[in-house]
Amino acid sequence: MKLYSYFRSSAAYRVRIALNLKGLDYEYEGVHLLRDGGEQLKPEYRAVNPDGIVPALVDGDDVLTQSLAIIEYLEETHPEPALLPKSPSDRAFVRSVAMQVACEIHPLDNLRVLKYLKHQVKVPDDVKDAWYRHWVEAGFASLEKRLAADRRVGSLTLGDTPTIADLCIVPQVFNARRFGIDVSPYPTIARIADYACTLDAFARAAPAQQPDAE
Amino acid sequence: MKLYSYFRSSAAYRVRIALNLKGLDYEYEGVHLLRDGGEQLKPEYRAVNPDGIVPALVDGDDVLTQSLAIIEYLEETHPEPALLPKSPSDRAFVRSVAMQVACEIHPLDNLRVLKYLKHQVKVPDDVKDAWYRHWVEAGFASLEKRLAADRRVGSLTLGDTPTIADLCIVPQVFNARRFGIDVSPYPTIARIADYACTLDAFARAAPAQQPDAE
Repeated sequence: MKLYSYFRSSAAYRVRIALNLKGLDYEYEGVHLLRDGGEQLKPEYRAVNPDGIVPALVDGDDVLTQSLAIIEYLEETHPEPALLPKSPSDRAFVRSVAMQVACEIHPLDNLRVLKYLKHQVKVPDDVKDAWYRHWVEAGFASLEKRLAADRRVGSLTLGDTPTIADLCIVPQVFNARRFGIDVSPYPTIARIADYACTLDAFARAAPAQQPDAE
Repeated sequence: MKLYSYFRSSAAYRVRIALNLKGLDYEYEGVHLLRDGGEQLKPEYRAVNPDGIVPALVDGDDVLTQSLAIIEYLEETHPEPALLPKSPSDRAFVRSVAMQVACEIHPLDNLRVLKYLKHQVKVPDDVKDAWYRHWVEAGFASLEKRLAADRRVGSLTLGDTPTIADLCIVPQVFNARRFGIDVSPYPTIARIADYACTLDAFARAAPAQQPDAE
């Protein structure tokens, strides 16, 4: 398998954790999102993924896109160790946590949105930074409330076993901290992220450990 | 089951289609997103879903949130008729189409984002409208390219059987048209949406057919 990734991409980071947890070897292909106007927008990468975003995972003849769809695919093709629990109710819980990050926070704060705000809407940097902070803080506040109240939460989102939820929380916390956001108002989220990062599969997926890290 | 919904919410619309396709009866509870500052933000609804967004589906003791997590739950608890195909490769394909809508287009154009742009960033209406158009058009252009090139596409995203992909495409096209966007540059997307809307389960899920429609 070959993963098109960028070391700092949250969505690629999720997939790297999944591949590591499953113990799958893969070839790493860096796509630099900032260099030269963005390598993801060049014809070479668009030939792989017309959407011009990372990640993309090539497995045989399949080019898989969208991080959560890729993770579900890995779960179906390599079921052990499972990244989804057994009961439909628990599966819905961890998927909803994953999607709270992937549908409510991350899409508003990714690079192309911040670029559009800056260059098309022409907002000053402090308004752009406030935008970033707002969606992380609103999203984390709401997620914290859910996690703090749910008895299924352990050292990770569902007990002590990594699930798709943790795969989304860790990169989002990493990114929030990189942008200087204080995550201490979200102690459950921060605790889950910090514990997950002590696990080998998460540690090896960290941005700084990637071949294209700067 | 009880569905907290708003007739115009794209995410609720997806779940309504899924419930109809599965032939499941449910109680409809309207949550008016605009009335009185937004009923979704009131303590009554927050007691159901602390995130303050629709939809939420109550099934026994479970309160399920995030439309795609709800749909996966319905698929697992009521497998027939299936909204996901059998092969992992095809499942990844329809999930990635669903997520292209749910993670790349819809989050940027939903009500709370447009409100933040207007009231916090204080952009004029034409900039807000251009923002809305930009993300729909960029997302649809990229999705159209994928669908037009994929031989699995039939009268719907995967052959002629409704999948999770169609459940996301239909509400997004509905919303785009409501905002006056010409979808003719995306003929495959428009054709899929138009055909889907001729099917009873989709037709009954349409905003105008809901008890809270205005």
